[in-house]
Amino acid sequence: MKYSLDSAKVAEATREWLRKRNVRTEEIAELVMFLQNQYIPDLTLADCKESVERVLEKREVQNAILTGIQLDILCERGELFAPLQEMVKNDEGLYGVDEILAMSIVNIYGTIGYTNFGYIDKLKPGILERLNDKNDGYIHTFLDDIVGAIAAAASSRIAHTRTAVLPPRDEAESPAP
Amino acid sequence: MKYSLDSAKVAEATREWLRKRNVRTEEIAELVMFLQNQYIPDLTLADCKESVERVLEKREVQNAILTGIQLDILCERGELFAPLQEMVKNDEGLYGVDEILAMSIVNIYGTIGYTNFGYIDKLKPGILERLNDKNDGYIHTFLDDIVGAIAAAASSRIAHTRTAVLPPRDEAESPAP
Amino acid sequence: MKYSLDSAKVAEATREWLRKRNVRTEEIAELVMFLQNQYIPDLTLADCKESVERVLEKREVQNAILTGIQLDILCERGELFAPLQEMVKNDEGLYGVDEILAMSIVNIYGTIGYTNFGYIDKLKPGILERLNDKNDGYIHTFLDDIVGAIAAAASSRIAHTRTAVLPPRDEAESPAP
Amino acid sequence: MKYSLDSAKVAEATREWLRKRNVRTEEIAELVMFLQNQYIPDLTLADCKESVERVLEKREVQNAILTGIQLDILCERGELFAPLQEMVKNDEGLYGVDEILAMSIVNIYGTIGYTNFGYIDKLKPGILERLNDKNDGYIHTFLDDIVGAIAAAASSRIAHTRTAVLPPRDEAESPAP
Repeated sequence: MKYSLDSAKVAEATREWLRKRNVRTEEIAELVMFLQNQYIPDLTLADCKESVERVLEKREVQNAILTGIQLDILCERGELFAPLQEMVKNDEGLYGVDEILAMSIVNIYGTIGYTNFGYIDKLKPGILERLNDKNDGYIHTFLDDIVGAIAAAASSRIAHTRTAVLPPRDEAESPAP
Repeated sequence: MKYSLDSAKVAEATREWLRKRNVRTEEIAELVMFLQNQYIPDLTLADCKESVERVLEKREVQNAILTGIQLDILCERGELFAPLQEMVKNDEGLYGVDEILAMSIVNIYGTIGYTNFGYIDKLKPGILERLNDKNDGYIHTFLDDIVGAIAAAASSRIAHTRTAVLPPRDEAESPAP
Repeated sequence: MKYSLDSAKVAEATREWLRKRNVRTEEIAELVMFLQNQYIPDLTLADCKESVERVLEKREVQNAILTGIQLDILCERGELFAPLQEMVKNDEGLYGVDEILAMSIVNIYGTIGYTNFGYIDKLKPGILERLNDKNDGYIHTFLDDIVGAIAAAASSRIAHTRTAVLPPRDEAESPAP
Repeated sequence: MKYSLDSAKVAEATREWLRKRNVRTEEIAELVMFLQNQYIPDLTLADCKESVERVLEKREVQNAILTGIQLDILCERGELFAPLQEMVKNDEGLYGVDEILAMSIVNIYGTIGYTNFGYIDKLKPGILERLNDKNDGYIHTFLDDIVGAIAAAASSRIAHTRTAVLPPRDEAESPAP
């Protein structure tokens, strides 16, 4: 039987796996708010959530999420081979494949998201603190970075969108479509 | 005076500078056709051109194009400082900033475009052969790679779009691009 | 017990897993030769093999290899969850995580390797043809791209090294250390 | 006349241009210290400076530095074409070419540097605050990010090196950076 692409199934699986791993869209939206509210005073949590939803529709983002969660789960079960098992389990400092997957998400909305990703990845606000907790039985070595990357991407998306819809500034011409 | 973003002006400048450098959308569309027609038999040049136009609407793509063309032009005039002038003029093998700008374009549509970029960058079909000609007085060290990247990005975009418009999943076995 | 980094174990596991997956350093060296011999007439297969060995010593390269082979093997056993299992099994066109891991290898030696990676990933010479064979029971969705990336990185490494050791050209000053 | 690569000249020009732009290696070393001293208690400023020096020897790093400083200087003189001139002058939020060049530096030492780059790019400690000052007549839109990237790369380099010189594995529990 010929392989048949099924992008709807990939989108649905992504949503379901995020839920199973206790990641709610609202919490990612709160990271976006954390990153953006000083720049956009009238930004609402609903705006942020909407932006996160749009990011989650991208196939590359779904691919990274599914692959990352799969590796986290296999590690929880102790099913990765050595020494990959130990590196992922301990979120080893020299193991950067989690950051690689994260950056593939950020890149979709351009390089302006790099700074935001690094910033929340270091500070670990909100949900990132919970995901980064090494003592709750879960392994979130990949998901931790991926959630930060989704928030950074959603922030970049807002920056692009806001520019497009901003009313003309008094000193300049009209905005771009 | 406060700086005011003007995305319409950036888009317009991009279009104009591509024209001044003799790069026509049709020629980039032909590169897309070269890359994709064996996978999508019913693909038309109009489809390819449409995809190139969508890629050119992206701000990151416009930023890379303007920056690259600016460096090419300054080099033509001999206005870069040494040894940058010589490196850009000779498209030096160890100078990879042109490839860096190119990949920032490809990345917008995901990593599936890497292969296509490398392939046409090596083969130099169509317009790429002309841009790569070192004896016509023009310097296209940056534009050469950028045009290849736009074609690779437009190809990735078609791959994503074609999948999205496939018949409903329950009809199954819909062919993958 | 505190986690203890053990880079020697990671290096050793990488070498062993490449062997178990039937990838010999000589074969990667042949890809390097394929990419470079037209530019460096006196390049030997031993030079190429030496360069591949140096690339394989890099921790980031080892991380990507181990992670990629792990995913390939889990897929062979049917142990990835749906729809990731199907995407990896079929090397799906819209699944680009294999390319992401590959580029993390190429990047270590700079962006000048992008073109070479894309070129051999498209042409599939030598070992790449074998790895890409879908009918031998093996899944090499990740390893295929990773081996191409190692060859591209080793080629970039040679370009950097040769420049450093080239004798002075008759028309110019001395080479760099 | 055939073009002759001269890597010594590129290295020398990089060093000279950093000096002309008032960036001292010690100041970048202080950024490295800021990023690393909580993880490596016995780290000295001399260690950090040594690591920065090694990063500055890499050709890709030199290429990014020279290209970035060139664009900054042309912008100071008002010699970039519109609207690139305005975008670079104002370090426009949607213009991410400076981040692209920065990441090409970070990538050389692997993806583990992404977080550090984003973190100091947001906090702007030490020299980064000075470079980011918009009122001193200088334009450092590119150099700002490049200096942060060099510090992040030098930090990654230290992480890799420290691991390599740790006591033999059988003594166990050696602390990971």
